[in-house]
Amino acid sequence: MFESAEVGHKLKKTEFAKQEPVLRSALLDAQHALLAENKTPVIILVNGVDGAGKGETVNLFNAWMDPRYIHTFAFGPSTDVERQRPEMWRFWQALPPKGRIGIMFGSWYTDPILQRVMESETESELEKRLARIRDHERMLVAEGTLIVKLWFHLSKSAQQMRLKELSTKAKTAWRVTKDDWRHFKHYDEFVQVSQLALRETSTGEAPWHVIDGSNHAYRSFTAGSLLLDAITRRLKGERHVVTPPEPLPQPSLDHRTVLNTADYRRALTHSTYERRLAKLQGDLNLLTRHKKMRDRSLVIVFEGMDAAGKGSTIRRVTRAIDARYYRVIPIAAPTEEERAQPYLWRFWRHVPTHGHSAIFDRSWYGRVLVERVEKFASEPDWMRAYHEINEFEEQLADGGAIISKFWLAITQAEQIKRFKVRAKTPYKQFKITEEDWRNRKKWPAYERPVADMIDRTSSDIAPWNIVASNDKLWSRVEVLERLCERIESSL
Amino acid sequence: MFESAEVGHKLKKTEFAKQEPVLRSALLDAQHALLAENKTPVIILVNGVDGAGKGETVNLFNAWMDPRYIHTFAFGPSTDVERQRPEMWRFWQALPPKGRIGIMFGSWYTDPILQRVMESETESELEKRLARIRDHERMLVAEGTLIVKLWFHLSKSAQQMRLKELSTKAKTAWRVTKDDWRHFKHYDEFVQVSQLALRETSTGEAPWHVIDGSNHAYRSFTAGSLLLDAITRRLKGERHVVTPPEPLPQPSLDHRTVLNTADYRRALTHSTYERRLAKLQGDLNLLTRHKKMRDRSLVIVFEGMDAAGKGSTIRRVTRAIDARYYRVIPIAAPTEEERAQPYLWRFWRHVPTHGHSAIFDRSWYGRVLVERVEKFASEPDWMRAYHEINEFEEQLADGGAIISKFWLAITQAEQIKRFKVRAKTPYKQFKITEEDWRNRKKWPAYERPVADMIDRTSSDIAPWNIVASNDKLWSRVEVLERLCERIESSL
Repeated sequence: MFESAEVGHKLKKTEFAKQEPVLRSALLDAQHALLAENKTPVIILVNGVDGAGKGETVNLFNAWMDPRYIHTFAFGPSTDVERQRPEMWRFWQALPPKGRIGIMFGSWYTDPILQRVMESETESELEKRLARIRDHERMLVAEGTLIVKLWFHLSKSAQQMRLKELSTKAKTAWRVTKDDWRHFKHYDEFVQVSQLALRETSTGEAPWHVIDGSNHAYRSFTAGSLLLDAITRRLKGERHVVTPPEPLPQPSLDHRTVLNTADYRRALTHSTYERRLAKLQGDLNLLTRHKKMRDRSLVIVFEGMDAAGKGSTIRRVTRAIDARYYRVIPIAAPTEEERAQPYLWRFWRHVPTHGHSAIFDRSWYGRVLVERVEKFASEPDWMRAYHEINEFEEQLADGGAIISKFWLAITQAEQIKRFKVRAKTPYKQFKITEEDWRNRKKWPAYERPVADMIDRTSSDIAPWNIVASNDKLWSRVEVLERLCERIESSL
Repeated sequence: MFESAEVGHKLKKTEFAKQEPVLRSALLDAQHALLAENKTPVIILVNGVDGAGKGETVNLFNAWMDPRYIHTFAFGPSTDVERQRPEMWRFWQALPPKGRIGIMFGSWYTDPILQRVMESETESELEKRLARIRDHERMLVAEGTLIVKLWFHLSKSAQQMRLKELSTKAKTAWRVTKDDWRHFKHYDEFVQVSQLALRETSTGEAPWHVIDGSNHAYRSFTAGSLLLDAITRRLKGERHVVTPPEPLPQPSLDHRTVLNTADYRRALTHSTYERRLAKLQGDLNLLTRHKKMRDRSLVIVFEGMDAAGKGSTIRRVTRAIDARYYRVIPIAAPTEEERAQPYLWRFWRHVPTHGHSAIFDRSWYGRVLVERVEKFASEPDWMRAYHEINEFEEQLADGGAIISKFWLAITQAEQIKRFKVRAKTPYKQFKITEEDWRNRKKWPAYERPVADMIDRTSSDIAPWNIVASNDKLWSRVEVLERLCERIESSL
């Protein structure tokens, strides 16, 4: 993997001096074209051996191009708010919007490699993290991001020389830390683990480029040319091909689904409802204040057709929880800043810290429901979403979240009944629009998407609950009961 | 101040049961009207004596209204990223957008009062913090926010009884912490300091409402009614009157200004430029890596007419700084999310953490420049901005920022010359638009706003540097030199 990067590549200073202005002006032009096009975010990952010129290269990129449209992030140890969220959260917060360049220094590769070399992480743990990274990068590329991954290499003797050289000069001594020497002692393991990491994550959609870091001119020119080439190809319309998602299973022959086989007749009397509601809200209150909740969080998703009772059910849930510790997130059309990012970005923003609950009134499942039905997303786009969503929820769970998802199921007849009531009741009129009446006709178009969604995204870590909700009272009690069970069994 | 809240107000349970549904439905209607209008953010501050029912009231507000459009924030001790920024930063991050309700539990009043009662803060320090709060609230109100400040009171004996009562019941014992009892020992000082705080901050635009917290029904109904009344009045178009800003001084009779008296002939030869630039960039690099910079940050502002050389000067600055530690923020039109907030919000977002630099290419001064000239902001709005900006910069400085502001001054003849060069040079054409040619005619309209801005916002903590920039080389060296001096004298 690193062999060709140890043969001592060189570029003459005079040659570099001649080539640099050309490269620089081409890069600046490419950057402006990216900005003008406003379609592609560019992520440059900068990793490799300490002392191999990573910092210098990043500074050069900033000097060559317009630094106003480059965001450079250096990721050190996590801050306290970062530690309370999934590992990838901080990288999501740092994603560049469309048209901009984001340089990630110490990227999502740093920690997996260091944990394996310096700490006790096993090879299979590393493999798992690399698989997650592959998924993450594939998703970014499928969303239109251009990822340029640069690995700066030095041979063992070259690294030692470089660290010594930096340490002895007064001007650069600060750049060599104790950690650098500590890491150097593990050079061989570091290279071995890095090779594995690069092999496992050098994919068609996001390949690694290994650069010999020993010669300033060679390294700089190579890195700049690689970047220029990648951006130029993208601007010409070349896209990395992402493996198409797994096809959907055909619907069953008898057309029986989880929805049309649900028992919609279940109902509660008002007195039973009041009694059970009070009991369950008390239980939920105690559960959310459980000691073990201090390093867990709660992510609750409500989906369902219009008028299924999402809002009123959410109110029964929130009344049981102290207002300081939950946030309800109503999902409407994405804002401008959200549209400049991958579709999951606007949900990552709301990932709760430990001890807190996030309650989603509609959610990321819009991708495989309304966006599929209305064709807002192309078929390959919503088809890959199942896997991406499962991956997202797995990361939430790994970060300590207890996930509970509810589909409030009503029949079409019940929906029409509720629309009519809304239209007649003054304080409910705001809840019904022309669009709702139009959407009503699309009922059949949602049947398969809902069934597909439940089949493909219900899992141990994030199970779907299908709650027949024609009777609101029964539905609310059922939701609270399942929610309490879910939390109890997860603590 | 608290006398009327100790007379033992009560509301019969039966009366409350009768009134509550009416109040609740009126509040829900008012909330929906706010949402539909989408103009006013509502902030509810919840403060007062421990055990006086603050938490219960917040939960009731969430139960009465639609929790999807209420954001409740509980502010505890600061997190590490918060501690590296001005005190008000975290409250800015929590501001509700237009149409939404934000409840702040443990608001900007909590720390000033506790520091005075429990720690060693002096009365004059408290007064200073209260003055800052007054300014902050006046700004929010002037920006269209409705602030409802609720203070929940209990007499000393009532608080003691309440804490005992909560401690003895198994279900509520968790709610009484050691801190509560520790605070209780200081009840008298707490009440005394709170009285001062309320007196100093109960203003026409954001008055305090003191509520007797001893009786659940009375307290809840009073708080709900106050909120309903405040929202209803606002929806009817009633606005709190904010003291008009101080008028601008008349321009001097002889029309001499800092701009037209600058010496635009100063210039450098290329060789002197190269030599001095290299020296100054080295100095700046060392300064940004100075040990003392670890708990300081750098905020650099560039303003100037079109083609004054802001971009190219910024590149000379950034080349001296490690890309990991600066961010250039180009200010363009505000995004949708930014437009839903007070105008300073989009700059608060970018306040750097310690050890980092934020370089603004145009800035909050747009309020008193382009927004004044183009009449995007009304006269009272841009006139109050001088004070608000000074206050903002003072907070930045208190939070550890070194602030340096540059006005790159060119003559009108020089601007036209540069426009023509841009129009002819292929890789500079993107920098010149029809609008630039149009704006050129507005040159005279900017003269007074620039002079006013410099007169009113140049201060010890955030001085303006007027740099005659007809000669780019001289200008860049001058900027770097003044920047280095500024940092050096501030460390």
